Amino acid sequence: MTPDEIRVSAFVAHGDVVLKGAAEGPLAGLTFAAKDLFDVAGTRSGWGNPDRLEEAPVSLTTASALLPALAAGATLIGKTHTDELASGMFGENPHYGPPINLRAPGRVPGGSSSGSAAAVAAGICDFAFGTDTGGSVRVPASFCGLFGIRTTHGRVSTAGLMPMAPSFDTVGWFARGAAMLRKIGGQYVGFAEANPRLLLAEDAFNICVPEVSAALRAAAAKLGGATPVALYREGIPHWLDTFRPLQLGELWATHGTWAMQPGRRLSPLVAERIALAGQVPAPAIARAWAAREALAGRLQALLAGDGILVLPTAHDLPPKVGAPVSAQIEFRDRTLALTCVASLCRLPQVNLPAGEINGVPIGLSLIGPSHGDAMLMAAAEALAPALA
Amino acid sequence: MTPDEIRVSAFVAHGDVVLKGAAEGPLAGLTFAAKDLFDVAGTRSGWGNPDRLEEAPVSLTTASALLPALAAGATLIGKTHTDELASGMFGENPHYGPPINLRAPGRVPGGSSSGSAAAVAAGICDFAFGTDTGGSVRVPASFCGLFGIRTTHGRVSTAGLMPMAPSFDTVGWFARGAAMLRKIGGQYVGFAEANPRLLLAEDAFNICVPEVSAALRAAAAKLGGATPVALYREGIPHWLDTFRPLQLGELWATHGTWAMQPGRRLSPLVAERIALAGQVPAPAIARAWAAREALAGRLQALLAGDGILVLPTAHDLPPKVGAPVSAQIEFRDRTLALTCVASLCRLPQVNLPAGEINGVPIGLSLIGPSHGDAMLMAAAEALAPALA
Repeated sequence: MTPDEIRVSAFVAHGDVVLKGAAEGPLAGLTFAAKDLFDVAGTRSGWGNPDRLEEAPVSLTTASALLPALAAGATLIGKTHTDELASGMFGENPHYGPPINLRAPGRVPGGSSSGSAAAVAAGICDFAFGTDTGGSVRVPASFCGLFGIRTTHGRVSTAGLMPMAPSFDTVGWFARGAAMLRKIGGQYVGFAEANPRLLLAEDAFNICVPEVSAALRAAAAKLGGATPVALYREGIPHWLDTFRPLQLGELWATHGTWAMQPGRRLSPLVAERIALAGQVPAPAIARAWAAREALAGRLQALLAGDGILVLPTAHDLPPKVGAPVSAQIEFRDRTLALTCVASLCRLPQVNLPAGEINGVPIGLSLIGPSHGDAMLMAAAEALAPALA
Repeated sequence: MTPDEIRVSAFVAHGDVVLKGAAEGPLAGLTFAAKDLFDVAGTRSGWGNPDRLEEAPVSLTTASALLPALAAGATLIGKTHTDELASGMFGENPHYGPPINLRAPGRVPGGSSSGSAAAVAAGICDFAFGTDTGGSVRVPASFCGLFGIRTTHGRVSTAGLMPMAPSFDTVGWFARGAAMLRKIGGQYVGFAEANPRLLLAEDAFNICVPEVSAALRAAAAKLGGATPVALYREGIPHWLDTFRPLQLGELWATHGTWAMQPGRRLSPLVAERIALAGQVPAPAIARAWAAREALAGRLQALLAGDGILVLPTAHDLPPKVGAPVSAQIEFRDRTLALTCVASLCRLPQVNLPAGEINGVPIGLSLIGPSHGDAMLMAAAEALAPALA
């Protein structure tokens, strides 16, 4: 594949825009991209769907989350593909095709922030913004061999972004190196030193397929001195059963009315998911909210101010492009058991590239305490050399 | 005024809907209303603006935040007026008029959750939901002599609500008594005991006009044993200068494109505010974000897990209906110095009715630690009798 093919695959056609960054600043000279959920003045936000793109006004405004990067001197070079309505883990948007994963040709880049990950992996820009509700930055970071952060919920503004499940929605970004990840982070959450207390989520590794589990356990061992803990004390099904009704319920509240309009062009998988979301009963949502707070409270006590939980980012290598839907659903549900932890508990998480299996990247994650984003990125930078 | 006049003034005409609550549950038999920013299946969400109302689809969905109340047995009886796009502190929506404040006839009910407060104050329903970005539950609670909570940011889902400034937007509710406030809260944040460490924000009382300051200091003294602290160590202007660019910047990102469409029917004050919002430069927003985190960090350390800050809710009695715009702006900016604290720091805050001056209600506030909502409502219930 040529650089141009990758570029075409990763960037949306309607987002051909450049917003010059400030002439001076800590990010001067850097370039970045933003997922097509971020409003950018002069463009439309297509949200990965052709109907939405048609309806979308040309924005006069730029999403709040992009402003610190621009003010610090970085230049926005375009908008990138997303799974439809950010509802997907693989990046295989049926309307626009999957962005090319340079690090694992023939395999998906991961989603829903697929184009942003693909663009950074291919070196088209220095960093790129995505959003992460249930794993949409962490999974593509893992699949594309990138550093990627999902920030603490509420820490970076979501103004001017498509909402998906607002109590889970966060802004994140990708970079090829830990130093760059942290440098961007400095403009959002400042800088901090790390003197973390590492906790190894023993049981989380059991979720992975054996080959990935073994490789990530070996990688985690290189970090040194992590205290083993049982993460899923309530059982993995309880975590998933808490996440699903809440996320689906919010997806329904956010997009149900729009998605159910007759004649809507929506891929069958997403249409079905939203219809399913409308079936979640109110009592199930109320119960799940209470369960969520109990989980979040336990994790907060576990991490306190300085704990960092080490766990796999995804349970397996990125699937090949065009895998059957049934395999995709099975994959999603299994990796979701890993990604739902930070989502439910509103915590920041960083993916660190942790080597390759047969040339395909795998990723190890660090989950930090609430609002410990700066410390977490410092820890990622300190620990990354051990995995290189 | 008749009960019917109050009802007509508080409820939107297009939100004539009843959603029956579950037959059994802890809230069975109670009735509630929701601000017209909350989507309710079968209605349109007008957001306080006639153009938006025309454009709005009939919703198939109900905002996530209303589901626990319905599941617990409470019945929704209608949707209530709001300031236009939730941009206002007084409830004087020029398109629909102000809801009647039964507790202070001739004075505004406060906004932007004006109709919800007016409806509860008049006894039309047992409780009502509002939203609070910069004071939109706290101020009308104070003006109408109600208990009202702004929850910890991110604690209650905003899915299916109009976003305003998402990093500040929260869900809240009103009740006539502290026990009811807490009973509703149990369905959202559970119950907790309170053994709070009271901190008296000495300098916050100086923001009030002398008569209100004296009355609220006397009320606070009745709570007993609060340790005096200096809240505004960075200076009041710094707090306001941090809040304004962020809130305006997000308002612009959220509604700028829509509001600036030619021919838009928007009240001059709101139109001007949004146009102003578009002028906030990106570097000012980036600086304010960093300043916000420093303030939030200091308050977090101050409150730790058990601290409750006691301060006035508003600096003066509710203005009379029809006050000149210049007086409204001056009022808003001064009360904002009080309300911006919890907004910037993402903290929960409860208004407690604290008596009257010439028959007009005044309110004392408690700000709790992040995610201390349940403890805060327990504290409000324990402390309320001292103020009665």
